[in-house]
Amino acid sequence: MQYLDFDRTGAYKKLSDLAARGKSFDFGALLTSERVAASTAPMAGGLIYSWAAKAVDAPVVSTLQNLSEEQELIGKYKALLDGETVNTGENRMVLHHLLRGQTGKRVSHGGKDLGSFYRLELDRFSAFSENVRNGTIRGSTGKAFTVAAQIGIGGSDLGPRALYLALEQWAASEGKRSLRGVFISNVDPDDAAQVTGSIPLEETIFILVSKSGTTQETLANELFVKEKLGKAGLDPSKHIVAVTSETSPLAHNPAYLDSFYIDDFIGGRYSSTSAVGGVILSLAFGPDTFKELLDGAREADTLALEPNLLGNAALLDAAIGVWERNFLDYPATAILPYSQALSRFPAHLQQLDMESNGKRVNRNGQPLTYSTGPVIFGEPGTNGQHSFYQLLHQGSAIVPLQFVGFTESQMREDVSVEGSTSQVKLNANLAAQIVAFAKGKGDPNRNKEFPGGRPSSLIYGQRLTPKTLGSLLAHFENKVMFQGFIWNLNSFDQEGVQLGKVLARKVLAGNSGDGALEAYAKLLGI
Amino acid sequence: MQYLDFDRTGAYKKLSDLAARGKSFDFGALLTSERVAASTAPMAGGLIYSWAAKAVDAPVVSTLQNLSEEQELIGKYKALLDGETVNTGENRMVLHHLLRGQTGKRVSHGGKDLGSFYRLELDRFSAFSENVRNGTIRGSTGKAFTVAAQIGIGGSDLGPRALYLALEQWAASEGKRSLRGVFISNVDPDDAAQVTGSIPLEETIFILVSKSGTTQETLANELFVKEKLGKAGLDPSKHIVAVTSETSPLAHNPAYLDSFYIDDFIGGRYSSTSAVGGVILSLAFGPDTFKELLDGAREADTLALEPNLLGNAALLDAAIGVWERNFLDYPATAILPYSQALSRFPAHLQQLDMESNGKRVNRNGQPLTYSTGPVIFGEPGTNGQHSFYQLLHQGSAIVPLQFVGFTESQMREDVSVEGSTSQVKLNANLAAQIVAFAKGKGDPNRNKEFPGGRPSSLIYGQRLTPKTLGSLLAHFENKVMFQGFIWNLNSFDQEGVQLGKVLARKVLAGNSGDGALEAYAKLLGI
Repeated sequence: MQYLDFDRTGAYKKLSDLAARGKSFDFGALLTSERVAASTAPMAGGLIYSWAAKAVDAPVVSTLQNLSEEQELIGKYKALLDGETVNTGENRMVLHHLLRGQTGKRVSHGGKDLGSFYRLELDRFSAFSENVRNGTIRGSTGKAFTVAAQIGIGGSDLGPRALYLALEQWAASEGKRSLRGVFISNVDPDDAAQVTGSIPLEETIFILVSKSGTTQETLANELFVKEKLGKAGLDPSKHIVAVTSETSPLAHNPAYLDSFYIDDFIGGRYSSTSAVGGVILSLAFGPDTFKELLDGAREADTLALEPNLLGNAALLDAAIGVWERNFLDYPATAILPYSQALSRFPAHLQQLDMESNGKRVNRNGQPLTYSTGPVIFGEPGTNGQHSFYQLLHQGSAIVPLQFVGFTESQMREDVSVEGSTSQVKLNANLAAQIVAFAKGKGDPNRNKEFPGGRPSSLIYGQRLTPKTLGSLLAHFENKVMFQGFIWNLNSFDQEGVQLGKVLARKVLAGNSGDGALEAYAKLLGI
Repeated sequence: MQYLDFDRTGAYKKLSDLAARGKSFDFGALLTSERVAASTAPMAGGLIYSWAAKAVDAPVVSTLQNLSEEQELIGKYKALLDGETVNTGENRMVLHHLLRGQTGKRVSHGGKDLGSFYRLELDRFSAFSENVRNGTIRGSTGKAFTVAAQIGIGGSDLGPRALYLALEQWAASEGKRSLRGVFISNVDPDDAAQVTGSIPLEETIFILVSKSGTTQETLANELFVKEKLGKAGLDPSKHIVAVTSETSPLAHNPAYLDSFYIDDFIGGRYSSTSAVGGVILSLAFGPDTFKELLDGAREADTLALEPNLLGNAALLDAAIGVWERNFLDYPATAILPYSQALSRFPAHLQQLDMESNGKRVNRNGQPLTYSTGPVIFGEPGTNGQHSFYQLLHQGSAIVPLQFVGFTESQMREDVSVEGSTSQVKLNANLAAQIVAFAKGKGDPNRNKEFPGGRPSSLIYGQRLTPKTLGSLLAHFENKVMFQGFIWNLNSFDQEGVQLGKVLARKVLAGNSGDGALEAYAKLLGI
């Protein structure tokens, strides 16, 4: 396999040549019903990726296809699936796809078949969840558990929380919800105080999630919870399960009701489909629901092997994103789901994308001179329309947009006002925004003029279900992976989070040796 | 008063000359305890604005002071307070400061003294709230109200919601909380279904908030709620109050228990200190709590009259933001409160800033060629550290940061692990991040190298209370206002939200006349 910095590829040169035309390409004027019909790529679970409103034409598509081949994107993906050491900085394999099924070759480590290991853990926490849900496993006062409270931060929080919220109402409307999920993440003690103050502790099972077992925030919150449980006369060892690696201090520890395992080949932000997300989702909605999510993700992983750009939504989305970032020079991307259930999905994608590709060195640690990952932000529509869309429509900079929409609501409760349901209004707004951003509108009053030329893509489907959610999750994971391959960087480490941790420990130890740091600590009461 | 486009000022030229030096200014190396001690400006309620870790030195400060004088920023603010038609696009005064007290001259409209009008409404909803809280006013089954549910979107949702969450735990710990607040905003029917399914309807008072009384989402959600109430055998007219303008169809309407009024001079995103935020905050925490918040805001408004940049935190913050946007070319700003209670404050500031200054024409509708408002995003720390900070530390682009921190937690429940409380850990992390971003760290392994030179400011204080929250809110409102004056644009209209609404109505009426729009509507099941 050949690993070239992006600016050393032939495609980079060709895309640079196309950039001037791309910036002035009036795709709004070309946006017809025919283009909308023709510009789609299939996704797993029946979702569809529509790129009609992107500043992309045939020469750009064919050059992006060349780029994909020149950078051997599918080959690199296959190598990842087959257990190559893709996480070069930490010298690790990258195996979150294997959590969903055997898409590549069998992978083993230290004589252990890792596909079997992940399946075994899935089976173990599925059985455990069933036993909690049917009342076989109960709290220390004998009461059945009604609340599952995740203690974790970063990848142990954002993904699982986004997925929980995405399915909570679906599960309620399908009669699948059993335990209610809540989340404690921040080291700010007000977070744990607020959450533990709002739940019946004797009916709560806590899920302590830390791969290393040393995460400062999570251990502080564990103690907070243990003290609360103790004061309530409850036995913490009957109320806490651990999700961790087998080498962590939390593993095989009788202080917990049970423990479920992941390993170093599952990165935090890619761990939603492991026990990190699986335990709380299985407790809340049942293991079958979680397995449907895995099915959607696995189907997406398989589709992402397709070499033809126009038949591979993750690859196409990745390539268009790079076109927008490096050649149209757009520094940010907004994620705009027209689905209240996806309210925290943008926060998960913010971590997934910015922590993976917010890098300035290549996979070998050599400096890069081109732009890498954009700033990612977003809120659900139509809420965002009444907030930051002003800047998106008429601001001085262009922000590419990623819309998501569904034909049906999750809960199927609706009202009709002035001849249309709320679900139809929601989608009428979504369709209207895509066209308004693309085409704009002239007006003699320049304050009421819309410049248009603001690109967006749309992922759409019938309904947000476990399977379509799994498809959506894996789509973005695979998109980010392909972009990392294009930029020739390591999307799977996060050295940028270390310095802050080191300095914080120095402050706590009282030996920072830095006058400014001590001054700031003093301002903050330390 | 003189209204010059920014690039026609002398200061613009001088700042352009300083820009190259600013981009290579190693403020990290100059960041000493002395600089930290010297680089602060007082804010209302005892908060302090620290700008030591900004790429700003004496020549920049003095040029920004010149800019303030040349653009007559304080004079324009006074004119706004005195009732000048600052919202040129809509030909309106801008009077949200008057909600907090009489900081400028008396202002009247159509013979009505508006200060008195706003005070009267404050008195009315204060008395009403007391009557609900003490059980004098009850629901249609005679039960006392225990839940206040706001129905509103955009400015009728984000600000009130952020403030509610910011004070919820403070109020609980001070024994002030009475009604629990919930919010329905999105036209997605799953939003209203989820919220109404999680509250005791017979104990819920709904606050219907729409200035015009015609907001599509809010009217759809009103009907949703009325149908729910009806099905539960409850009388909607005993469960809903309206907050609207006196000319709206919702005003003086016997379909509501009561109505409280604002007017066209209170913009949506500036309406948190009107009845729009005041009713729910007064119901939840008592009118005295809301008045403390107004006190903090009024004190901030008075401080913002100070002409000396270094004594006026809002003015300084605004000017530094413009320096970073137009001369250091940073396209985004992150808001990072180290306070779980401020979890949705970034979402409010995202609207406040991006909807106000995401413009491309000046106050007279003439095109601007310089950059205006940045993209705003953020999450609370330490959560963000485990998410997108990787890009902030080591990404290819620089993002200025706005930190907020408090010495004490809100709830004062804490644990000590390894010799420090969680609150101390929280603040040790905050101090560490500021210094890590500014100074960076060399490393022979470039993947572990931190470039530094990433600017931040810090707002800090003792505790997040109603008064400090009011100070914080008004600080950002005034900062955004000053930036609008510098850019010579109208921060108080939002024409950019109109086109989407128009096209959505056409889709709903079935007469869009645009093939692409119809094609998108069809994809989405319409």
